[in-house]
Amino acid sequence: MYTTQETICALATPSGSGAIGIIRLSGPKAYEIANTIFHGKDLTKQATHTIHFGTVRDDNKIIDEVLVSLFKGPNSYTGEDSVEISCHGSSFILGKVIALCLKNGARFAKAGEFTQRAFVNGKLDLAQAEAVADLIASESESAHELAMNQMRGGFSDKIKTLRDELIHFASLIELELDFGEEDVEFADRDDLKELVDRLTVVLYNLIQSFSAGNVLKNGVPIAIVGEPNVGKSTLLNAILNEERAIVSDIAGTTRDAIEDEVNLGGIIFRFIDTAGLRETTDVVENIGITKTYQKVDQATVILYLVDAKKSTKEEIQKTVATIQARIVDTNKRLIVVANKLENELNDKKEVPTAILDKFEGLDEVHYLSALQKTNVEELCAHLVELVKSNIVSNSDVTVSNYRHYEALSKAYEALMKVTEGLAVNITGDFLAMDIRQSLHYLGEITGEITTDDLLGNIFSKFCIGK
Amino acid sequence: MYTTQETICALATPSGSGAIGIIRLSGPKAYEIANTIFHGKDLTKQATHTIHFGTVRDDNKIIDEVLVSLFKGPNSYTGEDSVEISCHGSSFILGKVIALCLKNGARFAKAGEFTQRAFVNGKLDLAQAEAVADLIASESESAHELAMNQMRGGFSDKIKTLRDELIHFASLIELELDFGEEDVEFADRDDLKELVDRLTVVLYNLIQSFSAGNVLKNGVPIAIVGEPNVGKSTLLNAILNEERAIVSDIAGTTRDAIEDEVNLGGIIFRFIDTAGLRETTDVVENIGITKTYQKVDQATVILYLVDAKKSTKEEIQKTVATIQARIVDTNKRLIVVANKLENELNDKKEVPTAILDKFEGLDEVHYLSALQKTNVEELCAHLVELVKSNIVSNSDVTVSNYRHYEALSKAYEALMKVTEGLAVNITGDFLAMDIRQSLHYLGEITGEITTDDLLGNIFSKFCIGK
Repeated sequence: MYTTQETICALATPSGSGAIGIIRLSGPKAYEIANTIFHGKDLTKQATHTIHFGTVRDDNKIIDEVLVSLFKGPNSYTGEDSVEISCHGSSFILGKVIALCLKNGARFAKAGEFTQRAFVNGKLDLAQAEAVADLIASESESAHELAMNQMRGGFSDKIKTLRDELIHFASLIELELDFGEEDVEFADRDDLKELVDRLTVVLYNLIQSFSAGNVLKNGVPIAIVGEPNVGKSTLLNAILNEERAIVSDIAGTTRDAIEDEVNLGGIIFRFIDTAGLRETTDVVENIGITKTYQKVDQATVILYLVDAKKSTKEEIQKTVATIQARIVDTNKRLIVVANKLENELNDKKEVPTAILDKFEGLDEVHYLSALQKTNVEELCAHLVELVKSNIVSNSDVTVSNYRHYEALSKAYEALMKVTEGLAVNITGDFLAMDIRQSLHYLGEITGEITTDDLLGNIFSKFCIGK
Repeated sequence: MYTTQETICALATPSGSGAIGIIRLSGPKAYEIANTIFHGKDLTKQATHTIHFGTVRDDNKIIDEVLVSLFKGPNSYTGEDSVEISCHGSSFILGKVIALCLKNGARFAKAGEFTQRAFVNGKLDLAQAEAVADLIASESESAHELAMNQMRGGFSDKIKTLRDELIHFASLIELELDFGEEDVEFADRDDLKELVDRLTVVLYNLIQSFSAGNVLKNGVPIAIVGEPNVGKSTLLNAILNEERAIVSDIAGTTRDAIEDEVNLGGIIFRFIDTAGLRETTDVVENIGITKTYQKVDQATVILYLVDAKKSTKEEIQKTVATIQARIVDTNKRLIVVANKLENELNDKKEVPTAILDKFEGLDEVHYLSALQKTNVEELCAHLVELVKSNIVSNSDVTVSNYRHYEALSKAYEALMKVTEGLAVNITGDFLAMDIRQSLHYLGEITGEITTDDLLGNIFSKFCIGK
């Protein structure tokens, strides 16, 4: 087990007002430092995984009555001796206790340093460590599920299986190189080709899963296109109400209101408001339209919102054609929302033929009244359904981390070279080089291969205290 | 021990992003509920004050990897069986775990309900329970010290001692009443007078300590009076710099920047900006001046800030006289700050006689340059000194809670009636009534005497989770 020399310390709970706040210590002097500031009993003589009541004192001045939790390495999160001090949640007290830890030999922890130590001490591999940060940041069921699966090792296992198979062949080829003069083939080329083909399919599917994983982690971007006064904010509010209804069973959680983010069916949708798409010769308006196009390009779903009563058939059909001409990605979807049907849908929910005619020939038209919340629920359900059916990945594991996506892409490229090499009967040393490349990139994902820069870059994105 | 029927549950750490979040359960079913959602081992078979690693699951779906801390009643904060679940600090996870607790029989805790249970179960008296909320809210050393002393029972002990002495006499007088016909005096009137005199002095000092205690808890209000452009915000920034220098040794604590609150020497100062005090016939300006007077009335210290170069002797002397005429409270202090002495004080710090002349005859003039930060440190030190010397209380215990102040005042009034009664040789039954009144109010402070309304009122001011 790797043991670092320094003992680190940080606030592990959010700052702000709460009943309690927790200060974490980890490292060889964690017990010693805690014992110096804690009064009540000798912590060094207590069993691991036990809790002790006492006071934290600065000389003889009582700073707080606390509970201290002890974790003897290697049976701790970091793998080192660790102590958690549970204080009253006053910023003054927490600051003072941290200052006391620092005074007695601890150092302030860097972002992600506790998890980095867990990685260095072999408690987690790198992909699992990264999932810890994703897990903490997860705000929706789908993002949570991705991160939890990754933290529990689902993704790492997949990568390790691929890597092990490849290592087996690599070692056979390296063996050939040792007998280079003798023109032997330990690694059967047909078997290798079969393996490489299989691996490239798996890698391809993993790479393909990234756009879905990214959407699940960061939210589905939805562009709302529509002229002013067609009811964009009314629709957003109506959708927000749907969300409230869905999440109301989780009492006691105050969700920070981010205006345009909505959680529907465990998926975060990010609504992007845009200007209209009307043809114009006005320069200023044209700039607006250019921006709208950019937002349409970024979106996974485009909601075209129409005042179903005021808009003419010609206007509607023209705008739909304009948007569809812009869509190149087949995964992108356009949904037309015919709004302001306030009293048309109330009872029987049948759309008048005069209205239906305006939307003739268009797929996926939703007739609703955002104001009266008629058919809004149906629209929400459709959005969830659309995303869920679109993001079904061909892989049982979904990639949601850009670093992993990049490494997988590079591993894939190297494997494609192996395929090409095999096709032209390239020599073993070249094959070995490409296989080694591929192994290198796969190893970067789980951390078998790391550099200080890479680690620094990954863990600096964590919060302090984790 | 009182055991409530319901098991309560709440988030005990602040909401927001942090490495970990803690969910508290307390009540007869705390272990059972935790055991239902926790997988890893049977929690009901584990010793108190131990920590256990496992997963929280919703059916078979893993919500989080957690650490569970067990506290078997009565050895817990509330005195009941309690469990703390330490989760990853994701709002999704925390909401989900709370929802699982609720689903399995817990109820969402009301504000302060954990502490209220601690009070009901005799773990804390009422004044100590109130101090818990003050402790959590404490942001300065002096507010922290007050709350800590009160939570550790310093104030309660004082009140209990007073009450015990009074109870002794009360019971003797009540005994006299039983023998009413026989005209006996078990309670020596001279001894009673001596006791009541002593108690009234103690109560008086406690009541007097409230203004100091209140200031320590809520901050010292300082009104800054001065014309526009005399350098008010420059001075405030310079003072803020002093604060940063003072608190910089407590690393890692991010203090929310409240523009006009400054912590100097462990005391919070609240700066109140005001308009000038120039005489005027202008109606609008006169409204401003009325407001300035109101702020001056609320302040403990008045800083009159002057452009020492531009202002004339007449203006300065007149404004000082106007402010002083307004000050009725002898504890209120006026400090004159002669600002904009940019290059006058640089090296030798001697004030030119032409400047000195303008401030002739005035006490407490500070000559400084806020811009160059010359003599600002001295002004800060003086403010701290002033407050510290002014707030030395005649009592070793300081009252900082308005409810206590009111109860003490009422107990004091009742005791004064006893004194008056003794002076005119009032009969025992009247004395007994007033003594009982006094005992009642003292008992309300520590909670020997409570009503549901009183408790509800006190604990509703707590945060949820404490």
